[in-house]
Amino acid sequence: MSDTGAAPPSRLEQRKVRTRAALVAAGQQLLAEGRTDVAVSVITDLADVGLGSFYNHFATKDELFAAATATAAQEIVAGLDELTAEVTDPVERFAACLRLVGRMHRRLPQLSGILLRSGAPMLSVRGELMQFPRRDLLDGIERGRFAVADPDLALAATAGAMLMLGQLLADEPDRDDATAADAMTRTLLGAFGVDAGEAERICALPLPGDGGA
Amino acid sequence: MSDTGAAPPSRLEQRKVRTRAALVAAGQQLLAEGRTDVAVSVITDLADVGLGSFYNHFATKDELFAAATATAAQEIVAGLDELTAEVTDPVERFAACLRLVGRMHRRLPQLSGILLRSGAPMLSVRGELMQFPRRDLLDGIERGRFAVADPDLALAATAGAMLMLGQLLADEPDRDDATAADAMTRTLLGAFGVDAGEAERICALPLPGDGGA
Repeated sequence: MSDTGAAPPSRLEQRKVRTRAALVAAGQQLLAEGRTDVAVSVITDLADVGLGSFYNHFATKDELFAAATATAAQEIVAGLDELTAEVTDPVERFAACLRLVGRMHRRLPQLSGILLRSGAPMLSVRGELMQFPRRDLLDGIERGRFAVADPDLALAATAGAMLMLGQLLADEPDRDDATAADAMTRTLLGAFGVDAGEAERICALPLPGDGGA
Repeated sequence: MSDTGAAPPSRLEQRKVRTRAALVAAGQQLLAEGRTDVAVSVITDLADVGLGSFYNHFATKDELFAAATATAAQEIVAGLDELTAEVTDPVERFAACLRLVGRMHRRLPQLSGILLRSGAPMLSVRGELMQFPRRDLLDGIERGRFAVADPDLALAATAGAMLMLGQLLADEPDRDDATAADAMTRTLLGAFGVDAGEAERICALPLPGDGGA
């Protein structure tokens, strides 16, 4: 992979990559809609690829949906990483991640749908999605900014609150996502020992990628 | 149903009820194990009923899994209702429900597995599972015991924290469920304006059905 002398990928290899990506995208759409109990032909039709090509990439539907879930997690992490790259304070960064995830539920409905339906395992405190909040929480604890006795319990509370905020936004289409995300983030900061005034200040900071709004 | 003059159910009707219950139990087991992508014959084998009888009760596998999820929710609610019937203080009752649900994750692993894998919709603040905590939270707010600006947001945080506590207990088999459940409950009470000493007292109360431990 890092062999700089390698030949460029052949047309066949390029097509394989495109076919797999189309299948994963179809899997993501079905996951977001909660429609995983479908025939393989529904998936290949949606991906606009041949029925037989499914089995060149995945042994089972479960394998496709696992790949689609993992890809969604990577997309969320990459988006948060890019948007919060400039934030250096761990508490502000922790808060910025939560405020962005809260907004994501409404602004990236497909990713939100996958999160809501994939269940608790995707948000395990040991998983990829929780690596950023984990690092910032531990960093904030070390600097005495968070008063948290059990970081894993705090991360579990964080993951769950942000997940169920998404369900609340889905249940209440008129609820403002930004207001709700900032309020949930203030509640969590308060629960982790940040005083109310400081939590208020942090959750009113301009948010990266939000046009300063 | 309430017609006292009705004839007792025939043997055929009794068998129908038993067959449906066996299918729902099989559906619950598969849900808890995350094995929903199986053939109908796997379900009927597990239920020990004939293949054809599946379609006398359910049009699709999704319909069975929806019934299995709804039954699990009813079982959890009925268990909590029975265990907390004697608790009259709304804050103590709210806390008792959370402390019991936290312990349920380890003590009733099949119900916990269904919760963890069923995703956010099952824990919607509008759903059956959240009716108890909703009533107690609103009651506590009315009596000035909780300081909560947005009850739905607080309920979403509660549901999510208790769900992800279950995932944490699944990820860490050696973690004590009672200690973790009580700590998570104290954190939530604190986030909802209960002072630390009072939260400590409430979470140390003997728990119904727990032998006072």
